[in-house]
Amino acid sequence: MVHHVGVVGASGYGGVELLRLLAAHPGLQVAVVAAHSQAGTAVHDLFPNLADAGVFRPTDVDELADLDLVFLSTPHGPSIELGSQLADRGVRTVDLSGGFRLDAEAFERWYGDVHPRPDLLPDGTSERRAVYGLTEFARTAVAGATLVANPGCYVITTLLGLVPLASVIVPGSVVVDGKSGVSGAGRALSDRLHFSNVDGSVTAYGAPDHRHTGEIEQHLDVHGRDLGAISFTPHLIPIARGMLVTAYGQLEHGVDGDDVQDLLTDTYRDEPFVTVLDPGRFPVTKAVAGSNGCQLSAFVDPRTRRVVVVAVTDNLGKGAAGGAIQNANLMLGLDETSGLSAIGVYP
Amino acid sequence: MVHHVGVVGASGYGGVELLRLLAAHPGLQVAVVAAHSQAGTAVHDLFPNLADAGVFRPTDVDELADLDLVFLSTPHGPSIELGSQLADRGVRTVDLSGGFRLDAEAFERWYGDVHPRPDLLPDGTSERRAVYGLTEFARTAVAGATLVANPGCYVITTLLGLVPLASVIVPGSVVVDGKSGVSGAGRALSDRLHFSNVDGSVTAYGAPDHRHTGEIEQHLDVHGRDLGAISFTPHLIPIARGMLVTAYGQLEHGVDGDDVQDLLTDTYRDEPFVTVLDPGRFPVTKAVAGSNGCQLSAFVDPRTRRVVVVAVTDNLGKGAAGGAIQNANLMLGLDETSGLSAIGVYP
Amino acid sequence: MVHHVGVVGASGYGGVELLRLLAAHPGLQVAVVAAHSQAGTAVHDLFPNLADAGVFRPTDVDELADLDLVFLSTPHGPSIELGSQLADRGVRTVDLSGGFRLDAEAFERWYGDVHPRPDLLPDGTSERRAVYGLTEFARTAVAGATLVANPGCYVITTLLGLVPLASVIVPGSVVVDGKSGVSGAGRALSDRLHFSNVDGSVTAYGAPDHRHTGEIEQHLDVHGRDLGAISFTPHLIPIARGMLVTAYGQLEHGVDGDDVQDLLTDTYRDEPFVTVLDPGRFPVTKAVAGSNGCQLSAFVDPRTRRVVVVAVTDNLGKGAAGGAIQNANLMLGLDETSGLSAIGVYP
Amino acid sequence: MVHHVGVVGASGYGGVELLRLLAAHPGLQVAVVAAHSQAGTAVHDLFPNLADAGVFRPTDVDELADLDLVFLSTPHGPSIELGSQLADRGVRTVDLSGGFRLDAEAFERWYGDVHPRPDLLPDGTSERRAVYGLTEFARTAVAGATLVANPGCYVITTLLGLVPLASVIVPGSVVVDGKSGVSGAGRALSDRLHFSNVDGSVTAYGAPDHRHTGEIEQHLDVHGRDLGAISFTPHLIPIARGMLVTAYGQLEHGVDGDDVQDLLTDTYRDEPFVTVLDPGRFPVTKAVAGSNGCQLSAFVDPRTRRVVVVAVTDNLGKGAAGGAIQNANLMLGLDETSGLSAIGVYP
Repeated sequence: MVHHVGVVGASGYGGVELLRLLAAHPGLQVAVVAAHSQAGTAVHDLFPNLADAGVFRPTDVDELADLDLVFLSTPHGPSIELGSQLADRGVRTVDLSGGFRLDAEAFERWYGDVHPRPDLLPDGTSERRAVYGLTEFARTAVAGATLVANPGCYVITTLLGLVPLASVIVPGSVVVDGKSGVSGAGRALSDRLHFSNVDGSVTAYGAPDHRHTGEIEQHLDVHGRDLGAISFTPHLIPIARGMLVTAYGQLEHGVDGDDVQDLLTDTYRDEPFVTVLDPGRFPVTKAVAGSNGCQLSAFVDPRTRRVVVVAVTDNLGKGAAGGAIQNANLMLGLDETSGLSAIGVYP
Repeated sequence: MVHHVGVVGASGYGGVELLRLLAAHPGLQVAVVAAHSQAGTAVHDLFPNLADAGVFRPTDVDELADLDLVFLSTPHGPSIELGSQLADRGVRTVDLSGGFRLDAEAFERWYGDVHPRPDLLPDGTSERRAVYGLTEFARTAVAGATLVANPGCYVITTLLGLVPLASVIVPGSVVVDGKSGVSGAGRALSDRLHFSNVDGSVTAYGAPDHRHTGEIEQHLDVHGRDLGAISFTPHLIPIARGMLVTAYGQLEHGVDGDDVQDLLTDTYRDEPFVTVLDPGRFPVTKAVAGSNGCQLSAFVDPRTRRVVVVAVTDNLGKGAAGGAIQNANLMLGLDETSGLSAIGVYP
Repeated sequence: MVHHVGVVGASGYGGVELLRLLAAHPGLQVAVVAAHSQAGTAVHDLFPNLADAGVFRPTDVDELADLDLVFLSTPHGPSIELGSQLADRGVRTVDLSGGFRLDAEAFERWYGDVHPRPDLLPDGTSERRAVYGLTEFARTAVAGATLVANPGCYVITTLLGLVPLASVIVPGSVVVDGKSGVSGAGRALSDRLHFSNVDGSVTAYGAPDHRHTGEIEQHLDVHGRDLGAISFTPHLIPIARGMLVTAYGQLEHGVDGDDVQDLLTDTYRDEPFVTVLDPGRFPVTKAVAGSNGCQLSAFVDPRTRRVVVVAVTDNLGKGAAGGAIQNANLMLGLDETSGLSAIGVYP
Repeated sequence: MVHHVGVVGASGYGGVELLRLLAAHPGLQVAVVAAHSQAGTAVHDLFPNLADAGVFRPTDVDELADLDLVFLSTPHGPSIELGSQLADRGVRTVDLSGGFRLDAEAFERWYGDVHPRPDLLPDGTSERRAVYGLTEFARTAVAGATLVANPGCYVITTLLGLVPLASVIVPGSVVVDGKSGVSGAGRALSDRLHFSNVDGSVTAYGAPDHRHTGEIEQHLDVHGRDLGAISFTPHLIPIARGMLVTAYGQLEHGVDGDDVQDLLTDTYRDEPFVTVLDPGRFPVTKAVAGSNGCQLSAFVDPRTRRVVVVAVTDNLGKGAAGGAIQNANLMLGLDETSGLSAIGVYP
């Protein structure tokens, strides 16, 4: 049995990656490819890897409502509007934007607006309120959700590294230094994304007010441990896709490197997409390029008693489209790994 | 039913790409991963995308002879030795080197040595002589072959563009300008492949004696038309994978752009891996990165009456491991596209 | 004595390179930095290497007319308008656009418009008609010119390779395959110049109607030998700056590789910016990055009797701003190499 | 008057950058180009930008002793040996290695060996003991030194950001996250520096035992404030040259963003090579590529009360050859900026 799905906002990089991955998915079939701004354009005109993917269509909620599941790869504004309508109709939806990731107060703090549908936020009152899609720590909730808020790319990469260690890190001590490929900034044109300016260059950006800061803070609390405010500085790296996060935290007394390694390996022993490297090895982003994988390792410097976790994902894979499909698989009762078995393209 | 295959020379870039693709192949299972120079090394040490691929083993011909098919991703010297032994034992083999691609005279001209087993060359006397694996033009022969000589990456990219047009091009007029990603030069270290030297730079190399020159000349003759000596200049481009070939030829009188377009579209209408773009569009290498695809287009300049064909492949995909698996599928009676459905990773 | 110069169109990549080079020029001082579209913007906002370069100003012809020399780094439309006004007033001007490079008929053919001031074109009737700035072959004319049409980047790279050989190449046989860094496409934003799309990819573009085709054809004729129509295919390479041209031509009977090498070394023996490499060496673009240098080499394939010339420049250096300053030095009676002594930034 | 200098270890990337910069230096003339491992090789064979730089010679201490100043761009072992001999003879020497940067105890801790000449270390007893070449904070000492230990690239980039703020940062709170271009790893070949492996990828390496950690800790103490042990994690970025350091520190009570900005601007107001950006701007590495510049900015997150300083240099420029020439200028009584006026090559 094949489920019919739609991709809205398909002309962005998250959208095209959904189309690429879904083309090889044995259980999901793309029935609607919508992109407001590019309606009428051939997919192939923007994404030459997709030779036979037809034409972007305008968004039609009624049409979407007939599908088994909808992926929203739109900015948070349209996502809130569409996601609310689809949730109200009971249509399974995975939203890749920040529209439903935070509770109402945090949303206002980081997005600068009052959320129009607080009942659908993770702390909302609706029974169809959004489930935050941190899959490895939320399988049951995701499987039963109508609306899943897919985590931001920096956030999931950081949380996969830090959540297992939250109980041994001193609150208030966390520093997260992120390095992202350029596709993470989206397909919209801007001077700072012009090849000539980006190539051969590195820069920081967006700190200290990047919205993923609040999202990390809010969802680090999986096991009930609030680590407080964090420092998060994202950087733009001249690669098309891939993301590396280096997270630093002060260890509680009595915790050592072996404890850290045990916490990580115990957490991810049976996980299909998360690989804990042996101590002394460092993950490289290209090992997971084009895949849904995450590789991570950690070390402790006894001089400073800080733990440093380094985690890599493909920002378009596990950090966006891959993770979204993983959640969709759970929501539809499919094998969680269905359509996601590709290995990183290396070299 | 699953066929058991071996990969010899698995520590090179062609080898690792075979391992990556075969890991997702529903009908082929890798039973032997051999690499002479790296025996004992964990695959993951060299190729961090392959987390669970075990340890490179030494080459054992007896072990290989028990398999359903062997991929040789070794240099032409070891390939000739191993390929001969396996052919003599009747073991299906796809050789990715230049060991069995040329006839005896051309081999001596371009490789500087007398071939030790001319009976196994394409023009040889053995009934197990090599079939040149230009799949789209040699399906029946490949399907019946014991030993397949997989084309060089520049060669297949050039031939997919030129073979359909050979009948309308003036002999002696062909110029082929190739642009290759760095993985085409192999994993062996050298100063000119150091990142610091390659990044931000382009250079030509190897001309006019690059061995693929002779291979193009020999196998352009699919439809019985000898186009004579060609000029071939390869260039090194700062990308990890991907290849673009720009081929120029003088058109015979009375042939125009529409004729050229018709020849290409007629040839490839039903081909699963070759896409002919509409006139005015130019292929981009990243559209086929990580895939077995080839995209090509052509145009005619009425002022010079030259046709220019531009073709792209992934040098490790259709140009090496992907094409080799396509041939192996045919040899084993599998669907030709089995395990090769991945779409190019773009962006 | 210091000459005061202006840079118009300073917000483009040619313009900023002029500003960068002029900042270190001992004899030229930038008095006006104009950029119509960016008037009021701090130079540093667009070009963070130029910390103290002030603010882009609107273009004021009267102000420009008081300067010793004006560099026009504008598109050909504004260049024609401004260049004409400045020439009429007798103001020395180096125009980096295609506005004054072709004769009237060729301009109409390649630019699709009737030129409004044919008297100022290289074949025009005005005594202030433009001199085509192929410096190494036009020193006297450049030194006496009011208006210099600076060659296109592909053109000068090609001509430095082919002009010395024009007498031994068969007319009608020339194929030019160009590879350019992305800055050659300018600073204007477009989807195809987005880092995510360009990185890791190569493509052809613009053929067969790229305007540099006609410019190469027209100016190859330095020594009175018309080589006829050429085939020119430009390619976009994922590097920020740098250009490599591979030019192919059929040799006249009796000419061999030694003759070719002699023609090149004799031509460039005393040239400060052109280096002829020994036979068997291939130039690399990064060797001349950031400099005004050109490196080239040639070889002959005795099987095809074609000569292949490979030449590299920095498209923003010798191919634009560097070459323009070289011409300006001559026009103002300065040492031709003044301000241009920087060596390529390698690695 | 021209001073004669030598470059030892000239075949490394630090060495070639010295040769490139010195070729344009009006007051220094390169009299000896030595490289033990490459003696007899033409410089041009390794570094095609240097067309007329002769042949690498073997090291001859007597020959070096006749020069006005020697640059040692050798590994710390040979540097200690040569530097000691030259210092004993009273020859001015700038050593780019880690041979003389640390005091005896720290050297043993971070380099794993007892230093053979502790009297020449910065805390040594010899009057010719090394001066640590943090130029902006050590001009008088450098000007009078016989032996200058040039800082490591990560170290100077970090210290230029942190030294002005040391008085307002809580000891024990510093985290330094470094991002370096590949040339920082040197010219020696290794699998992890192969273009195919590095391109499109990011990784951490060397932590927590990178030798620059101890060097940062030791020399942060310019104004007498010991900030204790730091956490330092270097990362390899796919760019040839350029370095960005992101440093985090907890602010003392009562210190805010304006105080931080004032400390930075007051410190660097008159510095020729250090530019403090306005609040809200982030430095980009390419703005200083090929130059001796450093650009930096800082911000304070009031939620965490951490200051974050972001600083960029060219690791081969200010981080190695450029900084070394700046020190040499002082030692020889030249204008400190002599030969260092080049602006960053952007784009």
